[in-house]
Amino acid sequence: MLYVLKIGGNILNQPASLEKALDYFSSLGAAAILVHGGGRKADEVLRKMAQEPVMIDGRRITDAATLKVVTMVYAGLLNKNIVAALQKRGVNAIGLSGADGNLILANKRPVIDIDYGYAGDIISVNATFLNHLLALGLSPVLCSITHNGMGTLLNTNADTITNKLAQALVNLGNTEVCIQYCFELPGVLEDIRRPDSVIPQISPSSYRSLRSQNVISAGMLPKLDNAFTALEAGVKKVMIGNIDALAAGKGTHIVPD
Amino acid sequence: MLYVLKIGGNILNQPASLEKALDYFSSLGAAAILVHGGGRKADEVLRKMAQEPVMIDGRRITDAATLKVVTMVYAGLLNKNIVAALQKRGVNAIGLSGADGNLILANKRPVIDIDYGYAGDIISVNATFLNHLLALGLSPVLCSITHNGMGTLLNTNADTITNKLAQALVNLGNTEVCIQYCFELPGVLEDIRRPDSVIPQISPSSYRSLRSQNVISAGMLPKLDNAFTALEAGVKKVMIGNIDALAAGKGTHIVPD
Repeated sequence: MLYVLKIGGNILNQPASLEKALDYFSSLGAAAILVHGGGRKADEVLRKMAQEPVMIDGRRITDAATLKVVTMVYAGLLNKNIVAALQKRGVNAIGLSGADGNLILANKRPVIDIDYGYAGDIISVNATFLNHLLALGLSPVLCSITHNGMGTLLNTNADTITNKLAQALVNLGNTEVCIQYCFELPGVLEDIRRPDSVIPQISPSSYRSLRSQNVISAGMLPKLDNAFTALEAGVKKVMIGNIDALAAGKGTHIVPD
Repeated sequence: MLYVLKIGGNILNQPASLEKALDYFSSLGAAAILVHGGGRKADEVLRKMAQEPVMIDGRRITDAATLKVVTMVYAGLLNKNIVAALQKRGVNAIGLSGADGNLILANKRPVIDIDYGYAGDIISVNATFLNHLLALGLSPVLCSITHNGMGTLLNTNADTITNKLAQALVNLGNTEVCIQYCFELPGVLEDIRRPDSVIPQISPSSYRSLRSQNVISAGMLPKLDNAFTALEAGVKKVMIGNIDALAAGKGTHIVPD
Protein backbone atom coordinates (compact mmCIF):
# COMPACT_ATOMS: atom_id res chain seq x y z
CA MET A 1 0.00 0.00 0.00
CA LEU A 2 1.23 3.51 -0.86
CA TYR A 3 0.04 5.93 1.82
CA VAL A 4 -0.53 9.64 1.31
CA LEU A 5 -0.91 11.18 4.76
CA LYS A 6 -2.11 14.74 5.05
CA ILE A 7 -1.57 16.57 8.32
CA GLY A 8 -3.44 19.75 9.08
CA GLY A 9 -2.52 23.09 10.57
CA ASN A 10 -3.68 22.35 14.10
CA ILE A 11 -1.36 19.36 14.38
CA LEU A 12 1.59 21.31 12.97
CA ASN A 13 1.21 23.94 15.67
CA GLN A 14 1.19 21.52 18.60
CA PRO A 15 4.65 20.00 19.09
CA ALA A 16 3.35 16.89 20.92
CA SER A 17 0.71 16.19 18.24
CA LEU A 18 3.24 16.71 15.47
CA GLU A 19 5.69 14.31 17.12
CA LYS A 20 2.93 11.70 17.35
CA ALA A 21 1.98 12.25 13.71
CA LEU A 22 5.61 11.85 12.61
CA ASP A 23 5.96 8.68 14.71
CA TYR A 24 2.91 7.35 12.92
CA PHE A 25 4.21 8.38 9.48
CA SER A 26 7.53 6.65 10.28
CA SER A 27 5.62 3.47 11.09
CA LEU A 28 4.06 3.38 7.60
CA GLY A 29 7.33 2.19 6.03
CA ALA A 30 9.11 3.49 2.95
CA ALA A 31 6.22 3.87 0.52
CA ALA A 32 4.60 6.89 2.10
CA ILE A 33 4.15 10.53 1.21
CA LEU A 34 3.41 13.30 3.69
CA VAL A 35 1.49 16.44 2.72
CA HIS A 36 1.21 19.43 5.03
CA GLY A 37 -0.11 22.96 5.08
CA GLY A 38 0.63 25.31 7.95
CA GLY A 39 -1.94 28.09 7.99
CA ARG A 40 -1.86 28.59 11.76
CA LYS A 41 1.91 29.07 11.82
CA ALA A 42 1.70 31.38 8.80
CA ASP A 43 -0.84 33.51 10.68
CA GLU A 44 1.57 33.74 13.63
CA VAL A 45 4.46 34.88 11.42
CA LEU A 46 2.25 37.31 9.47
CA ARG A 47 1.23 38.95 12.74
CA LYS A 48 4.88 39.11 13.93
CA MET A 49 5.59 40.98 10.70
CA ALA A 50 2.71 43.36 11.51
CA GLN A 51 0.46 41.96 8.81
CA GLU A 52 -3.06 40.72 9.51
CA PRO A 53 -4.11 37.48 7.73
CA VAL A 54 -7.07 38.03 5.37
CA MET A 55 -9.58 35.19 4.94
CA ILE A 56 -12.87 35.06 3.02
CA ASP A 57 -15.15 32.07 3.70
CA GLY A 58 -12.26 30.22 5.30
CA ARG A 59 -9.99 30.74 2.30
CA ARG A 60 -6.84 32.79 2.52
CA ILE A 61 -6.34 35.85 0.34
CA THR A 62 -2.71 35.52 -0.73
CA ASP A 63 -1.37 38.93 -1.70
CA ALA A 64 2.32 39.28 -2.65
CA ALA A 65 3.48 39.87 0.94
CA THR A 66 1.41 36.91 2.20
CA LEU A 67 2.84 34.66 -0.53
CA LYS A 68 6.35 35.44 0.77
CA VAL A 69 5.31 34.51 4.30
CA VAL A 70 3.52 31.26 3.39
CA THR A 71 6.52 30.28 1.23
CA MET A 72 8.83 30.91 4.17
CA VAL A 73 6.63 29.08 6.65
CA TYR A 74 5.39 26.11 4.60
CA ALA A 75 8.45 25.39 2.41
CA GLY A 76 11.06 26.60 4.89
CA LEU A 77 10.27 26.47 8.59
CA LEU A 78 7.70 23.65 8.69
CA ASN A 79 8.90 21.52 5.78
CA LYS A 80 12.56 21.42 6.83
CA ASN A 81 11.80 20.83 10.50
CA ILE A 82 9.51 17.94 9.56
CA VAL A 83 12.21 16.51 7.28
CA ALA A 84 14.85 16.80 10.03
CA ALA A 85 12.46 15.20 12.55
CA LEU A 86 11.81 12.30 10.15
CA GLN A 87 15.55 11.85 9.43
CA LYS A 88 15.99 11.54 13.21
CA ARG A 89 13.47 8.67 13.05
CA GLY A 90 15.45 6.94 10.29
CA VAL A 91 13.04 7.95 7.53
CA ASN A 92 14.95 9.27 4.50
CA ALA A 93 12.61 12.21 3.97
CA ILE A 94 12.94 14.77 1.20
CA GLY A 95 11.04 18.04 1.44
CA LEU A 96 9.43 19.42 -1.69
CA SER A 97 7.30 22.23 -2.97
CA GLY A 98 5.38 21.91 -6.22
CA ALA A 99 8.17 23.83 -7.99
CA ASP A 100 10.81 21.21 -7.12
CA GLY A 101 11.22 18.74 -9.97
CA ASN A 102 8.23 20.51 -11.55
CA LEU A 103 6.11 18.40 -9.22
CA ILE A 104 2.87 20.39 -9.23
CA LEU A 105 1.96 22.85 -11.95
CA ALA A 106 -0.90 25.21 -11.16
CA ASN A 107 -2.78 28.19 -12.55
CA LYS A 108 -3.26 31.40 -10.62
CA ARG A 109 -6.96 31.28 -9.73
CA PRO A 110 -8.92 33.56 -12.08
CA VAL A 111 -10.75 36.45 -10.45
CA ILE A 112 -14.51 35.97 -10.67
CA ASP A 113 -16.19 37.39 -7.57
CA ILE A 114 -13.19 37.33 -5.26
CA ASP A 115 -9.49 37.96 -5.99
CA TYR A 116 -7.72 35.23 -4.03
CA GLY A 117 -4.34 36.63 -5.12
CA TYR A 118 -1.55 34.06 -5.50
CA ALA A 119 -3.81 31.04 -5.02
CA GLY A 120 -3.04 28.10 -7.30
CA ASP A 121 -5.49 25.67 -8.89
CA ILE A 122 -3.69 22.46 -9.85
CA ILE A 123 -3.17 21.65 -13.54
CA SER A 124 -0.97 18.55 -13.25
CA VAL A 125 1.04 16.42 -10.84
CA ASN A 126 4.35 14.89 -11.96
CA ALA A 127 3.83 11.45 -10.40
CA THR A 128 6.71 9.96 -12.43
CA PHE A 129 9.10 12.16 -10.46
CA LEU A 130 7.52 11.00 -7.18
CA ASN A 131 7.90 7.37 -8.26
CA HIS A 132 11.61 7.98 -8.98
CA LEU A 133 12.07 9.37 -5.47
CA LEU A 134 10.14 6.48 -3.89
CA ALA A 135 12.29 4.03 -5.88
CA LEU A 136 15.38 5.63 -4.30
CA GLY A 137 13.91 4.87 -0.85
CA LEU A 138 13.04 8.51 -0.24
CA SER A 139 9.86 9.61 1.55
CA PRO A 140 8.56 12.82 -0.06
CA VAL A 141 7.26 15.53 2.29
CA LEU A 142 5.18 18.04 0.34
CA CYS A 143 4.22 21.50 1.41
CA SER A 144 1.25 23.30 -0.07
CA ILE A 145 3.18 25.62 -2.40
CA THR A 146 2.94 25.05 -6.17
CA HIS A 147 4.22 26.99 -9.19
CA ASN A 148 2.89 28.15 -12.55
CA GLY A 149 5.94 27.21 -14.64
CA MET A 150 6.53 30.90 -15.37
CA GLY A 151 8.52 31.60 -12.23
CA THR A 152 5.65 32.35 -9.87
CA LEU A 153 4.95 30.36 -6.71
CA LEU A 154 1.32 29.80 -5.71
CA ASN A 155 -0.45 28.92 -2.46
CA THR A 156 -2.55 25.76 -2.90
CA ASN A 157 -4.93 23.92 -0.58
CA ALA A 158 -3.16 20.93 1.01
CA ASP A 159 -6.28 18.71 0.93
CA THR A 160 -6.56 19.28 -2.82
CA ILE A 161 -2.86 18.54 -3.32
CA THR A 162 -3.28 15.27 -1.43
CA ASN A 163 -6.24 14.32 -3.56
CA LYS A 164 -4.74 15.21 -6.96
CA LEU A 165 -1.44 13.60 -6.00
CA ALA A 166 -3.09 10.32 -5.06
CA GLN A 167 -5.06 10.33 -8.31
CA ALA A 168 -1.91 10.99 -10.35
CA LEU A 169 -0.22 8.03 -8.66
CA VAL A 170 -3.22 5.84 -9.51
CA ASN A 171 -3.12 7.04 -13.14
CA LEU A 172 0.52 5.99 -13.27
CA GLY A 173 -0.43 2.44 -12.30
CA ASN A 174 -0.29 2.42 -8.51
CA THR A 175 -3.40 0.42 -7.72
CA GLU A 176 -2.92 0.43 -3.96
CA VAL A 177 -3.03 4.09 -2.96
CA CYS A 178 -4.57 5.01 0.40
CA ILE A 179 -5.25 8.60 1.47
CA GLN A 180 -5.30 9.45 5.17
CA TYR A 181 -6.63 12.86 6.13
CA CYS A 182 -5.37 13.55 9.62
CA PHE A 183 -7.08 16.34 11.55
CA GLU A 184 -8.08 17.08 15.16
CA LEU A 185 -11.31 15.01 15.34
CA PRO A 186 -11.48 11.20 15.70
CA GLY A 187 -13.41 11.00 12.42
CA VAL A 188 -16.49 12.32 10.67
CA LEU A 189 -19.01 12.86 13.49
CA GLU A 190 -22.74 12.26 13.43
CA ASP A 191 -23.03 14.94 16.11
CA ILE A 192 -20.25 17.53 16.08
CA ARG A 193 -20.61 17.96 19.89
CA ARG A 194 -20.09 14.22 20.58
CA PRO A 195 -16.57 12.88 19.81
CA ASP A 196 -17.95 9.36 20.34
CA SER A 197 -20.33 9.72 17.38
CA VAL A 198 -17.76 8.76 14.71
CA ILE A 199 -19.34 7.35 11.54
CA PRO A 200 -17.08 4.33 10.92
CA GLN A 201 -17.81 3.97 7.22
CA ILE A 202 -19.32 6.13 4.49
CA SER A 203 -20.06 4.90 0.98
CA PRO A 204 -21.45 7.00 -1.88
CA SER A 205 -25.00 5.84 -1.13
CA SER A 206 -24.79 6.37 2.63
CA TYR A 207 -23.18 9.78 1.92
CA ARG A 208 -26.25 10.77 -0.11
CA SER A 209 -28.51 9.71 2.73
CA LEU A 210 -26.38 11.48 5.41
CA ARG A 211 -26.37 14.66 3.33
CA SER A 212 -30.11 14.61 2.83
CA GLN A 213 -30.54 14.31 6.62
CA ASN A 214 -28.10 17.20 7.17
CA VAL A 215 -26.15 15.01 9.57
CA ILE A 216 -22.68 16.06 8.42
CA SER A 217 -21.37 19.51 9.37
CA ALA A 218 -20.88 21.94 6.50
CA GLY A 219 -17.11 22.18 7.17
CA MET A 220 -16.67 18.46 6.46
CA LEU A 221 -18.43 18.51 3.08
CA PRO A 222 -15.48 19.70 0.92
CA LYS A 223 -13.22 17.08 2.54
CA LEU A 224 -15.79 14.34 1.88
CA ASP A 225 -16.49 15.52 -1.68
CA ASN A 226 -12.72 15.37 -2.27
CA ALA A 227 -12.58 11.89 -0.75
CA PHE A 228 -15.30 10.52 -3.04
CA THR A 229 -13.67 12.11 -6.08
CA ALA A 230 -10.44 10.29 -5.16
CA LEU A 231 -12.30 7.02 -4.69
CA GLU A 232 -13.98 7.33 -8.09
CA ALA A 233 -10.56 8.00 -9.61
CA GLY A 234 -9.28 4.65 -8.33
CA VAL A 235 -7.82 5.47 -4.92
CA LYS A 236 -8.32 2.29 -2.89
CA LYS A 237 -9.32 3.82 0.41
CA VAL A 238 -9.69 7.19 2.12
CA MET A 239 -9.44 7.43 5.90
CA ILE A 240 -10.32 10.49 7.97
CA GLY A 241 -9.50 10.97 11.65
CA ASN A 242 -6.95 12.04 14.24
CA ILE A 243 -3.62 10.25 14.61
CA ASP A 244 -4.86 7.87 17.34
CA ALA A 245 -7.79 6.86 15.18
CA LEU A 246 -5.73 6.41 12.01
CA ALA A 247 -3.01 4.49 13.84
CA ALA A 248 -5.68 2.10 15.19
CA GLY A 249 -7.19 1.70 11.70
CA LYS A 250 -10.29 3.51 12.97
CA GLY A 251 -11.70 6.96 12.14
CA THR A 252 -14.05 7.21 9.18
CA HIS A 253 -13.37 4.99 6.17
CA ILE A 254 -14.62 6.21 2.82
CA VAL A 255 -15.32 3.13 0.74
CA PRO A 256 -17.08 2.20 -2.53
CA ASP A 257 -20.69 0.97 -2.42
CA MET B 1 32.40 19.08 -16.47
CA LEU B 2 30.22 19.14 -13.31
CA TYR B 3 29.82 22.73 -12.15
CA VAL B 4 29.12 23.79 -8.57
CA LEU B 5 28.12 27.44 -8.68
CA LYS B 6 27.87 29.37 -5.45
CA ILE B 7 25.99 32.66 -5.44
CA GLY B 8 26.38 35.11 -2.59
CA GLY B 9 24.02 37.23 -0.56
CA ASN B 10 24.52 40.45 -2.52
CA ILE B 11 23.42 38.81 -5.76
CA LEU B 12 20.39 37.22 -4.11
CA ASN B 13 19.18 40.62 -2.97
CA GLN B 14 19.39 42.33 -6.37
CA PRO B 15 16.67 40.95 -8.69
CA ALA B 16 18.55 41.92 -11.88
CA SER B 17 21.80 40.30 -10.70
CA LEU B 18 19.95 37.18 -9.60
CA GLU B 19 18.20 36.89 -12.98
CA LYS B 20 21.58 37.16 -14.69
CA ALA B 21 23.09 34.53 -12.38
CA LEU B 22 20.20 32.15 -13.07
CA ASP B 23 20.52 32.74 -16.83
CA TYR B 24 24.18 31.80 -16.49
CA PHE B 25 23.41 28.72 -14.36
CA SER B 26 20.84 27.62 -16.96
CA SER B 27 23.53 27.89 -19.67
CA LEU B 28 25.76 25.40 -17.82
CA GLY B 29 23.60 22.44 -18.90
CA ALA B 30 22.21 19.62 -16.83
CA ALA B 31 25.23 18.67 -14.75
CA ALA B 32 25.28 21.68 -12.48
CA ILE B 33 24.59 22.35 -8.81
CA LEU B 34 23.70 25.72 -7.35
CA VAL B 35 24.55 26.68 -3.75
CA HIS B 36 23.20 29.81 -2.12
CA GLY B 37 23.14 31.56 1.21
CA GLY B 38 20.97 34.61 1.80
CA GLY B 39 22.29 36.55 4.78
CA ARG B 40 21.16 39.95 3.52
CA LYS B 41 17.57 38.83 3.04
CA ALA B 42 17.62 37.09 6.44
CA ASP B 43 18.74 40.38 8.03
CA GLU B 44 15.79 42.16 6.38
CA VAL B 45 13.29 39.61 7.67
CA LEU B 46 14.86 39.56 11.14
CA ARG B 47 14.44 43.35 11.35
CA LYS B 48 10.82 43.11 10.14
CA MET B 49 10.25 40.73 13.03
CA ALA B 50 11.83 43.29 15.37
CA GLN B 51 14.98 41.27 15.89
CA GLU B 52 18.45 42.70 15.28
CA PRO B 53 20.96 40.38 13.53
CA VAL B 54 23.98 39.59 15.71
CA MET B 55 27.36 39.12 14.01
CA ILE B 56 30.83 38.60 15.51
CA ASP B 57 33.81 38.96 13.13
CA GLY B 58 31.47 38.66 10.15
CA ARG B 59 29.94 35.44 11.44
CA ARG B 60 26.29 35.22 12.39
CA ILE B 61 25.26 34.22 15.89
CA THR B 62 22.33 31.87 15.26
CA ASP B 63 20.12 31.75 18.35
CA ALA B 64 16.86 29.73 18.24
CA ALA B 65 14.78 32.63 16.88
CA THR B 66 17.41 33.43 14.23
CA LEU B 67 17.55 29.76 13.18
CA LYS B 68 13.81 29.91 12.48
CA VAL B 69 14.26 33.00 10.33
CA VAL B 70 17.26 31.72 8.33
CA THR B 71 15.39 28.43 7.76
CA MET B 72 12.38 30.38 6.46
CA VAL B 73 14.47 32.67 4.26
CA TYR B 74 17.12 30.28 2.90
CA ALA B 75 15.12 27.05 2.55
CA GLY B 76 11.75 28.69 1.88
CA LEU B 77 11.66 32.14 0.31
CA LEU B 78 14.97 32.16 -1.58
CA ASN B 79 15.31 28.46 -2.41
CA LYS B 80 11.79 28.03 -3.80
CA ASN B 81 11.84 31.27 -5.77
CA ILE B 82 15.18 30.26 -7.32
CA VAL B 83 13.76 26.82 -8.17
CA ALA B 84 10.65 28.36 -9.76
CA ALA B 85 12.79 30.83 -11.72
CA LEU B 86 14.96 27.96 -13.01
CA GLN B 87 11.92 25.87 -13.92
CA LYS B 88 10.74 28.86 -15.98
CA ARG B 89 14.10 28.62 -17.81
CA GLY B 90 13.55 24.92 -18.55
CA VAL B 91 16.01 23.74 -15.88
CA ASN B 92 14.51 20.90 -13.84
CA ALA B 93 15.69 22.30 -10.52
CA ILE B 94 15.12 20.68 -7.13
CA GLY B 95 15.62 22.73 -3.98
CA LEU B 96 17.30 21.06 -1.03
CA SER B 97 18.52 21.71 2.46
CA GLY B 98 21.11 19.47 4.06
CA ALA B 99 18.31 17.61 5.88
CA ASP B 100 16.64 16.50 2.62
CA GLY B 101 17.81 13.03 1.66
CA ASN B 102 20.24 13.34 4.59
CA LEU B 103 22.41 15.37 2.20
CA ILE B 104 24.63 17.22 4.67
CA LEU B 105 25.20 16.05 8.20
CA ALA B 106 26.76 18.59 10.57
CA ASN B 107 27.71 19.11 14.19
CA LYS B 108 26.56 22.08 16.22
CA ARG B 109 29.76 24.11 16.55
CA PRO B 110 31.24 23.59 20.01
CA VAL B 111 31.50 26.67 22.23
CA ILE B 112 35.14 27.67 22.76
CA ASP B 113 35.43 31.46 23.01
CA ILE B 114 32.20 32.34 21.23
CA ASP B 115 28.81 30.62 21.26
CA TYR B 116 27.72 30.70 17.61
CA GLY B 117 24.41 29.06 18.54
CA TYR B 118 22.89 26.82 15.87
CA ALA B 119 25.89 26.98 13.54
CA GLY B 120 26.77 23.71 11.84
CA ASP B 121 30.23 22.34 10.99
CA ILE B 122 29.96 19.74 8.23
CA ILE B 123 30.63 16.09 9.07
CA SER B 124 29.69 14.47 5.75
CA VAL B 125 28.06 15.09 2.37
CA ASN B 126 25.88 12.39 0.78
CA ALA B 127 27.22 12.73 -2.77
CA THR B 128 25.60 9.43 -3.82
CA PHE B 129 22.20 11.05 -3.33
CA LEU B 130 23.28 14.04 -5.44
CA ASN B 131 24.48 11.69 -8.19
CA HIS B 132 21.07 9.97 -8.18
CA LEU B 133 19.36 13.34 -8.65
CA LEU B 134 21.77 14.38 -11.41
CA ALA B 135 21.16 11.02 -13.15
CA LEU B 136 17.43 11.86 -13.16
CA GLY B 137 18.25 15.10 -15.02
CA LEU B 138 17.58 17.21 -11.95
CA SER B 139 19.67 20.28 -11.06
CA PRO B 140 20.06 20.48 -7.28
CA VAL B 141 19.74 23.91 -5.67
CA LEU B 142 21.18 23.85 -2.16
CA CYS B 143 20.56 26.34 0.59
CA SER B 144 22.94 26.73 3.49
CA ILE B 145 20.90 24.85 6.09
CA THR B 146 22.20 21.48 7.34
CA HIS B 147 21.03 19.09 10.07
CA ASN B 148 22.59 17.07 12.87
CA GLY B 149 20.66 13.83 12.28
CA MET B 150 18.98 14.29 15.68
CA GLY B 151 16.19 16.54 14.43
CA THR B 152 17.98 19.88 14.68
CA LEU B 153 18.60 22.16 11.71
CA LEU B 154 21.86 24.12 11.61
CA ASN B 155 23.02 27.25 9.80
CA THR B 156 26.16 26.51 7.74
CA ASN B 157 28.44 28.72 5.65
CA ALA B 158 27.54 28.42 1.95
CA ASP B 159 31.18 28.67 0.78
CA THR B 160 32.08 25.75 3.00
CA ILE B 161 29.11 23.72 1.75
CA THR B 162 30.23 24.37 -1.84
CA ASN B 163 33.73 23.24 -1.04
CA LYS B 164 32.84 20.09 0.89
CA LEU B 165 30.20 19.17 -1.67
CA ALA B 166 32.67 19.42 -4.55
CA GLN B 167 35.18 17.32 -2.64
CA ALA B 168 32.56 14.67 -1.88
CA LEU B 169 31.69 14.48 -5.60
CA VAL B 170 35.39 14.03 -6.42
CA ASN B 171 35.69 11.29 -3.80
CA LEU B 172 32.82 9.50 -5.48
CA GLY B 173 34.71 9.42 -8.75
CA ASN B 174 33.72 12.66 -10.51
CA THR B 175 37.09 13.75 -11.87
CA GLU B 176 35.77 16.84 -13.66
CA VAL B 177 34.34 19.03 -10.91
CA CYS B 178 34.64 22.82 -11.26
CA ILE B 179 33.72 25.24 -8.47
CA GLN B 180 32.63 28.76 -9.36
CA TYR B 181 32.39 31.27 -6.53
CA CYS B 182 30.22 34.09 -7.77
CA PHE B 183 30.33 37.35 -5.84
CA GLU B 184 30.15 41.09 -6.58
CA LEU B 185 33.76 41.66 -7.72
CA PRO B 186 35.20 40.70 -11.15
CA GLY B 187 37.79 38.46 -9.44
CA VAL B 188 40.51 38.52 -6.80
CA LEU B 189 41.94 42.05 -7.03
CA GLU B 190 45.57 43.11 -6.66
CA ASP B 191 44.27 46.49 -5.48
CA ILE B 192 40.81 46.39 -3.85
CA ARG B 193 40.14 49.96 -5.10
CA ARG B 194 40.81 49.05 -8.76
CA PRO B 195 38.28 46.67 -10.38
CA ASP B 196 40.65 46.35 -13.36
CA SER B 197 43.37 44.77 -11.19
CA VAL B 198 41.98 41.21 -11.39
CA ILE B 199 44.64 38.56 -10.85
CA PRO B 200 43.79 36.13 -13.69
CA GLN B 201 45.43 33.07 -12.19
CA ILE B 202 46.67 32.01 -8.77
CA SER B 203 48.59 28.81 -8.10
CA PRO B 204 49.75 27.56 -4.69
CA SER B 205 53.22 29.07 -5.22
CA SER B 206 51.96 32.45 -6.49
CA TYR B 207 49.47 32.45 -3.57
CA ARG B 208 52.37 32.13 -1.11
CA SER B 209 54.12 35.01 -2.78
CA LEU B 210 50.96 37.20 -2.93
CA ARG B 211 50.30 36.51 0.75
CA SER B 212 53.84 37.40 1.79
CA GLN B 213 53.49 40.73 -0.06
CA ASN B 214 50.09 41.35 1.65
CA VAL B 215 48.55 41.95 -1.77
CA ILE B 216 45.31 40.10 -1.15
CA SER B 217 42.68 41.67 1.12
CA ALA B 218 42.01 39.86 4.40
CA GLY B 219 38.38 39.18 3.44
CA MET B 220 39.46 37.10 0.44
CA LEU B 221 41.80 34.82 2.37
CA PRO B 222 39.20 32.34 3.72
CA LYS B 223 37.72 32.00 0.19
CA LEU B 224 41.16 31.36 -1.30
CA ASP B 225 42.19 28.96 1.47
CA ASN B 226 38.95 27.07 0.74
CA ALA B 227 39.72 27.10 -2.97
CA PHE B 228 43.19 25.60 -2.52
CA THR B 229 41.85 22.94 -0.16
CA ALA B 230 39.37 21.96 -2.87
CA LEU B 231 42.10 21.87 -5.50
CA GLU B 232 44.28 19.62 -3.33
CA ALA B 233 41.29 17.32 -2.84
CA GLY B 234 41.03 16.80 -6.60
CA VAL B 235 38.62 19.53 -7.75
CA LYS B 236 39.76 20.35 -11.29
CA LYS B 237 39.37 24.11 -11.23
CA VAL B 238 38.11 26.90 -8.98
CA MET B 239 36.94 30.17 -10.52
CA ILE B 240 36.16 33.35 -8.57
CA GLY B 241 34.39 36.41 -9.99
CA ASN B 242 31.13 38.12 -10.79
CA ILE B 243 28.65 36.63 -13.27
CA ASP B 244 30.00 38.60 -16.24
CA ALA B 245 33.52 37.42 -15.51
CA LEU B 246 32.53 33.77 -14.94
CA ALA B 247 30.33 33.71 -18.05
CA ALA B 248 33.29 34.98 -20.09
CA GLY B 249 35.62 32.37 -18.58
CA LYS B 250 37.48 35.20 -16.86
CA GLY B 251 37.71 36.20 -13.19
CA THR B 252 40.44 34.57 -11.11
CA HIS B 253 41.29 30.93 -11.86
CA ILE B 254 42.76 28.91 -9.02
CA VAL B 255 44.99 26.27 -10.60
CA PRO B 256 47.65 23.75 -9.55
CA ASP B 257 51.35 24.70 -9.83
